Amino acid sequence: MSKYQDLKEACCEANKQLPKLGIVDITFGNVSVVDRSLGVMAIKPSGVDYDDLTPDCMVVIDYEAKPDANHELDLEKAKIEGDLRPSSDTPTHMRLYQAFGDIGSVVHTHSRNATAFAQAGMAIPCMGTTHADYFYGEVPVSRVMTPEEISRHYEWETGNVIVERFKDLDPNQVNAILFNGHAPFIWGKNAKKAVEIAFALEVIAEMTMKSLMLRPNALHLTQAQLDKHYLRKHGAGAYYGQK
Amino acid sequence: MSKYQDLKEACCEANKQLPKLGIVDITFGNVSVVDRSLGVMAIKPSGVDYDDLTPDCMVVIDYEAKPDANHELDLEKAKIEGDLRPSSDTPTHMRLYQAFGDIGSVVHTHSRNATAFAQAGMAIPCMGTTHADYFYGEVPVSRVMTPEEISRHYEWETGNVIVERFKDLDPNQVNAILFNGHAPFIWGKNAKKAVEIAFALEVIAEMTMKSLMLRPNALHLTQAQLDKHYLRKHGAGAYYGQK
Amino acid sequence: MSKYQDLKEACCEANKQLPKLGIVDITFGNVSVVDRSLGVMAIKPSGVDYDDLTPDCMVVIDYEAKPDANHELDLEKAKIEGDLRPSSDTPTHMRLYQAFGDIGSVVHTHSRNATAFAQAGMAIPCMGTTHADYFYGEVPVSRVMTPEEISRHYEWETGNVIVERFKDLDPNQVNAILFNGHAPFIWGKNAKKAVEIAFALEVIAEMTMKSLMLRPNALHLTQAQLDKHYLRKHGAGAYYGQK
Amino acid sequence: MSKYQDLKEACCEANKQLPKLGIVDITFGNVSVVDRSLGVMAIKPSGVDYDDLTPDCMVVIDYEAKPDANHELDLEKAKIEGDLRPSSDTPTHMRLYQAFGDIGSVVHTHSRNATAFAQAGMAIPCMGTTHADYFYGEVPVSRVMTPEEISRHYEWETGNVIVERFKDLDPNQVNAILFNGHAPFIWGKNAKKAVEIAFALEVIAEMTMKSLMLRPNALHLTQAQLDKHYLRKHGAGAYYGQK
Repeated sequence: MSKYQDLKEACCEANKQLPKLGIVDITFGNVSVVDRSLGVMAIKPSGVDYDDLTPDCMVVIDYEAKPDANHELDLEKAKIEGDLRPSSDTPTHMRLYQAFGDIGSVVHTHSRNATAFAQAGMAIPCMGTTHADYFYGEVPVSRVMTPEEISRHYEWETGNVIVERFKDLDPNQVNAILFNGHAPFIWGKNAKKAVEIAFALEVIAEMTMKSLMLRPNALHLTQAQLDKHYLRKHGAGAYYGQK
Repeated sequence: MSKYQDLKEACCEANKQLPKLGIVDITFGNVSVVDRSLGVMAIKPSGVDYDDLTPDCMVVIDYEAKPDANHELDLEKAKIEGDLRPSSDTPTHMRLYQAFGDIGSVVHTHSRNATAFAQAGMAIPCMGTTHADYFYGEVPVSRVMTPEEISRHYEWETGNVIVERFKDLDPNQVNAILFNGHAPFIWGKNAKKAVEIAFALEVIAEMTMKSLMLRPNALHLTQAQLDKHYLRKHGAGAYYGQK
Repeated sequence: MSKYQDLKEACCEANKQLPKLGIVDITFGNVSVVDRSLGVMAIKPSGVDYDDLTPDCMVVIDYEAKPDANHELDLEKAKIEGDLRPSSDTPTHMRLYQAFGDIGSVVHTHSRNATAFAQAGMAIPCMGTTHADYFYGEVPVSRVMTPEEISRHYEWETGNVIVERFKDLDPNQVNAILFNGHAPFIWGKNAKKAVEIAFALEVIAEMTMKSLMLRPNALHLTQAQLDKHYLRKHGAGAYYGQK
Repeated sequence: MSKYQDLKEACCEANKQLPKLGIVDITFGNVSVVDRSLGVMAIKPSGVDYDDLTPDCMVVIDYEAKPDANHELDLEKAKIEGDLRPSSDTPTHMRLYQAFGDIGSVVHTHSRNATAFAQAGMAIPCMGTTHADYFYGEVPVSRVMTPEEISRHYEWETGNVIVERFKDLDPNQVNAILFNGHAPFIWGKNAKKAVEIAFALEVIAEMTMKSLMLRPNALHLTQAQLDKHYLRKHGAGAYYGQK
C-alpha cells in the first residue's frame, strides 16, 4: 500500500467532482492536492476522462522541483509515483504550492462563465454578497504573458505570472485568479474547499456578467458590506455555519 | 414528540425543494415557516447541505424576539428547540414576520437571475403576463444599506430596510424584494406557495433580463393587462385553477 | 368508454410532453386537440400539474361556441365532458380553431426565450435555416391589446387579436405568433407536430436572440434560401425525411 | 454480414452521441464516416430520431459521386447499401470528403451557440486557450450563398462554398466552419474526434460570445500563445495527454 494512498484518494475524488458540478467540459480541468509533510503533491493524469479516474491513476510529484537554467523541468524526474503522465498544467500547480505556503489544493478549470471573464481580460468586480462570502474583493485577472515567457517553460511561467499578480494580494483572502486569455486557477486549504470555491467562482461569474449586462455602470458592493460578509464567514468572529 | 413536529416537517420539505427547483447553489438559501398561534418559526440550520436536512435539524425560534438597546440579538436565547445554529439570516426572517402580519413563510435564495438584478440595483419591471400572474407591479429593489446599519445588527437591519421599502407597498400583492447588492427575499401565505413564488421570480427575472437585452426601452405591460392577469388569479373573482 | 377517448389521450400525452421538452415552468402552458368531425376539442384542465394529468382529466369542449352579446362565454355550458375546469386560455384556443380551418392542435407556452421576444414586443426575424425549416418568414408579434378588449372577454379577444395579425399571413405557413406582453401561441396539423413546432420556436428564439446580441444589424436569411429550406421540408417537392 | 458493418456501427454510435452531448435538437444534425479504401461513406438517414437509430439504418453512399451537367445528383444511384433515404445534407458531406483528403468523418449540427455566430455571419475569433487547443486560428464563417447557387444543387453548392473558404486555410488545422445563415460543419480524422471537436466548438462559441458581450473590443489571443497551445496538443512535439 502506497504511503500516498490517502492523498491519491482525496485527489481522485476531487477531480471526479468537477464534471458533477458542471465546471469542466471534455478534459479541461484538473485538481492537485499537496501533503507538505511528505513533500509531495498528487495530480490528475493528462487527458484522461474523469469517469476513468481511480486513485491509482493519480500521479505523485515532488512539488518543490524547479526548472533548470535552460528553463527545463523534467516531470518524469520529479515524479515519485504513478504510471501515467501528469497533467500538462502540473508546473503551474507546483509554482503555486511553492509561493503560497498555506494552500493545500489547487484547482484549474475552464468553467464557462469564469473563462469568459478571463478571455475578456477582465477582473470580476465584487458586486454582491455571494461574492463577498468567498472572495475579499475582486477576483483579479493576470496580465497577458509575453512571447518570451511562453517560449521559456510555459506552464511554469504561467505560475510566475500568477504569483506576480499576488505581490500585493493575500492568497488566503482571494483564492482565485483569472488567467488572461486562458481560464481560472483556484486554491484552498484542502481539496473539498478548493473545489467548492471553484464552483462558487463560476456561479459568481454568471451572476456578475448578467448584472453588468443589465447595467454596465452598476455600483460595486460597499466596503462595509464586503467586510461584513467576508468576515462573518472567515474572520475570527465568524458566525456562519455550525461550530 | 415535539409539538413543533408539523412545522419542522413543512420547513424541512420546503428547504429541500430549493435545490430540486435549481434556485440555490451550495448552501445559499433558506426557508422558514411560522406558526403564529404557537408564537414560533422553524428555520434551516446554518451551512448544512440540503441533502442532509431532516425535520429534526430544523431550529425553532421565538420569532417575536428583538435586538436589545445595544443592537444585540441572542439567537441562542431566542431558540426554543433544536441542537444546531439557525441560519445566519434568521433575524431578517423574524423582522419580516413581525412586520408583515399575513405571511406564513419566508424564502431567501441567491437564484442567479434574480440576484443579477439585485446586484445591478434594479427592480424587475412588469413586462409580461407571467410576471402579472404573480406580482402586482414591479418587483422592487431595496436601497443600499448604510455602513452604520451594517455595523449595528446586520441581519436585523436587512429586515428593516425591506420593511422600509414596503411603506407604500402591500406585501400581500408584491411578495418579494431584491435586496440591493445581495439577493431576493420572497414570502407567501405558506411554505409551498412561498417556494413557488421564489421559483416564479427566478423564471421572470430570466425572461425580463432577456427582453431588456433585446430592447432596452421595451414597453411595460399596460395597467389594464396587469390588473386582468393579477386579478384572474388573485382577486375575489379569480377563475384560474380549480375551485 | 367515452367516444372522445382517443382525443383525450392525445391531448394528455401532448400536455405531458411540455415539461419533458423544458418549454413550460410551473403550470404556464397547455395543449388542446380538435376533432372537427365530432365538433369538439379536448384541453388541459386549469392549474393542474403535468405529472398529475390523466386522459380522464382532460376537458372536452364544443369549440364552436362564441361569446354572447354581453361578451360572456360560459365554459360550463360549452363543456361536453369532464369534471374539471378547462384551462383559462380555452376561449383563445376556440377562437383559433374557428378561424384557422386546417389546424388540428393549439399549444400555448411561456417558454423563456420566445416569451422574452413577446415581452419585448419584437417579432423573431428569420436569420437562419433552422428558422426557415419551420416558419416561412418571421414569427410575428401581435399588437398590444387595448383596455377595452381586455375588459370584454379577455381570452376570446386574445384570439381575435391573433386572427387580426394573420389577415395577410397564412397560418399553415407561419404556425406561431408571439402575443405582445404575453407569450407564444403555436399550432399544427396535429398535437405531435404542434408540440414539435413549439419546441423549435424556443430553440430558434434562443439562437436568434444570441445572434442579435452578437450583431444587432446582422443580415436576415435571403429570400432564396428561405424558399429553399422551407420548401424542401414543406413544398410539393419536399425531400427531407422518409417518404 | 455487410462488409460495411464496422463503418455503419461507428456512424450510428457517433450520431447517437450528438443528443447526449446536447449539441442537437429534434433531428437537426448528422454524422458521416468515410472508409476511403472501400470508397464509401456511411451517413444518418434523413429525419429519423436519434433514439431509433441502429447500425442497419445507416445509409452507405459512394462518396465520389458528383452532380451531372444539369446539377442533378441522384442519391438513390449513389446509394450502395441501406433502405432509407440518406440525410438531405449528404451531398455537402460528399463534397468535403472529395476536397479534404485527410478527413475521416464530418459532423453537422445546429448547436445553439455556434449557430448564433453562423446566423450573425461572424467568425469566432480566437480569444483563449480553449479555442487554441482545438483550432489553429479563428473558426471562419462562409460567405452568403447566391440565389444562383441555391437554385443549382443546394447541398452540393453548400459544400463548394465551404471548400472555397478553405482556399488559403488548412482543413487539418481548422476543422470547422460556420456556414453563413445556417450552422456549423465540423470534421476530423475519425468520428470520435470529429464529434469531440463539434462539442468543443459549441463550448468555445458560448465562452467567446460571453467574452464579446463583456468587452466587445477584447484582445485576441497572442500568436505566441496560440502557437504554444495548438502545438502542445497537435504538433510533432505534442506533450498533452498520454503517449
